[in-house]
Amino acid sequence: MSRRDRSRPAGSGAPWWQRPDLRYRGGVLHLGRCDLAAVTAAARQPNYLYHAARVRANLARLRAALTRHTRRFRVFYALKANRCPGLLAALRATGACGIDACSPREIARALRAGFREDEISFTATSVADADLAALARHPGVWVNCDSLSMLARLGRRQPGRAIGLRVNPGCGVGYRRNRLVRYAGAATTKFGIYRSEFPAALALAADLGLRVTGLHVHAGCGYLTPELPRWERVLAATMEFADRIPGLRHVNVGGGLGIPLTAGDAPLDLAAWARLVARHVVRRGLEVWVEPGDYLVKDSGVLLLQVNTVETKHGARFVGVTGGFNLHPEPAFYGLPLEPVPVRAPAAGARRRRVQVAGNLNEALDLLARDAALPPVAEGDWLAFLNAGGYGAAMSSDHCLRGGFRERVV
Amino acid sequence: MSRRDRSRPAGSGAPWWQRPDLRYRGGVLHLGRCDLAAVTAAARQPNYLYHAARVRANLARLRAALTRHTRRFRVFYALKANRCPGLLAALRATGACGIDACSPREIARALRAGFREDEISFTATSVADADLAALARHPGVWVNCDSLSMLARLGRRQPGRAIGLRVNPGCGVGYRRNRLVRYAGAATTKFGIYRSEFPAALALAADLGLRVTGLHVHAGCGYLTPELPRWERVLAATMEFADRIPGLRHVNVGGGLGIPLTAGDAPLDLAAWARLVARHVVRRGLEVWVEPGDYLVKDSGVLLLQVNTVETKHGARFVGVTGGFNLHPEPAFYGLPLEPVPVRAPAAGARRRRVQVAGNLNEALDLLARDAALPPVAEGDWLAFLNAGGYGAAMSSDHCLRGGFRERVV
Repeated sequence: MSRRDRSRPAGSGAPWWQRPDLRYRGGVLHLGRCDLAAVTAAARQPNYLYHAARVRANLARLRAALTRHTRRFRVFYALKANRCPGLLAALRATGACGIDACSPREIARALRAGFREDEISFTATSVADADLAALARHPGVWVNCDSLSMLARLGRRQPGRAIGLRVNPGCGVGYRRNRLVRYAGAATTKFGIYRSEFPAALALAADLGLRVTGLHVHAGCGYLTPELPRWERVLAATMEFADRIPGLRHVNVGGGLGIPLTAGDAPLDLAAWARLVARHVVRRGLEVWVEPGDYLVKDSGVLLLQVNTVETKHGARFVGVTGGFNLHPEPAFYGLPLEPVPVRAPAAGARRRRVQVAGNLNEALDLLARDAALPPVAEGDWLAFLNAGGYGAAMSSDHCLRGGFRERVV
Repeated sequence: MSRRDRSRPAGSGAPWWQRPDLRYRGGVLHLGRCDLAAVTAAARQPNYLYHAARVRANLARLRAALTRHTRRFRVFYALKANRCPGLLAALRATGACGIDACSPREIARALRAGFREDEISFTATSVADADLAALARHPGVWVNCDSLSMLARLGRRQPGRAIGLRVNPGCGVGYRRNRLVRYAGAATTKFGIYRSEFPAALALAADLGLRVTGLHVHAGCGYLTPELPRWERVLAATMEFADRIPGLRHVNVGGGLGIPLTAGDAPLDLAAWARLVARHVVRRGLEVWVEPGDYLVKDSGVLLLQVNTVETKHGARFVGVTGGFNLHPEPAFYGLPLEPVPVRAPAAGARRRRVQVAGNLNEALDLLARDAALPPVAEGDWLAFLNAGGYGAAMSSDHCLRGGFRERVV
């Protein structure tokens, strides 16, 4: 499986990330129709921008791929990836997806954005009685149970309710070889009900009068085409659970669909992905649910930071910027790359140089990009960090009291 | 060097973390005079509690150790470790320390807590022009320069100012073998001015009329007695810089003084630490500045979370609680342990069992304790996570919209 980006004409010289709504025009990087130099000229702090049209396009592409195989599917956007109200409003306006929520406040946020209860699916872990009390106030919300404990407590509160079971397939999947984003696999994780406890879970549900009509699996984040065989093993393992539930109506195949993060990544082959879903889920006459987060929003977003320091230290070139892992934790804590791109186009033929892009926190791990190949940048320039639309602002902190930023949908 | 905790009588059976202000009384864990069962009975969400008397005791111990060698020293609390206003007020009331700030908003927070400008030392990285403009409004704040870029820009704004230079000694130190908390060492880091750029820095300062009267080093976090030889190498390397600055008055030896995090850690031998400071800094007639963060506050704090799930999955015992790495990131992202302790004392002779303490975030890394030896706990019980007073609340996020907590000084 080639990792080359097949959407980019060979020898075109275009950067790997370029697309019609993200490219230089007149020497300035544009996100949609938004001139990022104009944004930065007025900016007093770090800016997150999200392109609503890109989110819609990602959603439409996913729906189209599934539609080739079935009309019986539902998409739930995993709100935890990005809860920016403007972005939720844009998704709501499509009418083409619901919300995957993992906490009562996420349900409240979704309702406030205009989603109906029956458009919300709740999948949480280490669920407290207070969470269950909140769920009881929203009887239309779909609930997946992640443990026998939750099953027992939910059943006592709401006997007769239809529910889903989150299972742990015992194998994981994720971005390349990154083990930090796998939710199942060799090591036992906290997520879902394992095969060893599954009979007890079914018996408990039956005792409590809960009707198990849904099955849920999520085995990791960021998988691309090379990881599809592994993802198929996840699906196959999940179907062994499915085949033991008589009244099953749908299977939620989780999220985790990835996007290219570096020049070496090709976009996920969505047709191949959908064929696997069809082979394992549709073929059994089951409805398909899917809950993408990053796949819908990650490549819609850029984080704009200003360069404040350019300096060589002990032979290493550092480019210091006005934000750090408090604004976007993925490079520092997950080893996931953010691509830094100058807002103003580099001169033709500008020589690229390996640099370390350093955040402004007094923390050893605070690098936003390691060994990034950047054209010359000067203090005062702005950089756009691409693919910053998911798990950035949502995980931000105010560490070092440097956490201020503005967030906007364009 | 023994790692056994020598403050604990051998064979006493007391837990390694017990101290007069943190122990079970009448079957309930107390922090100072605070009955934690009473706190949790009234708690509607996660609670951080900090014991002001412990912070004062830590500060007094550090000052006493230095006083044996010199009266010319100053202590600056590294506010980024914990900025809780009540805690800052308690420190301010001692009159025995200033504040180490790393951002303009940290300066503002310190001033609001009652610290004077001349009690604040500013050491930041990737410093923006906006940061320098803020500094210019507080001329009494001491400023350390971390780069030639900062030096040049500060000098143009405020020629004639006395400053410190943060240097990079080229060697690091930190908690045990944890490489995530080292700020200098084999790999080139963003922090400080290296030996290779030091002559240029001195020349630049002279050109701009800046008077270099302070030197600053910070090489890593959490070091204990076994790491003191490594820390002495840091000091020795720093003194090679010091000896090249004619008008030098003080050396800031940074923070990073650690506390025991597990039963295997002994408290830092502060007398030995102070002897090293005396040997390298005091002996040269230089004033000593030190900027502890964790050393003052970490063991003053507990994070109280309720157990909501106790369940065996695939042979592994999980204890789920009402908070995750959004409330305290160190276990998940730094591999630093938080000790979970039941708020109600376990029965005498209760058998301990290895458990995984799982947070309530839908994130693969969200474990608060791995392989913790816990006595039996039940759903509804509360756990106190010890040594949670530093880099917990300060780094918290609202990820998954599960980030609510209460913070209080007792």
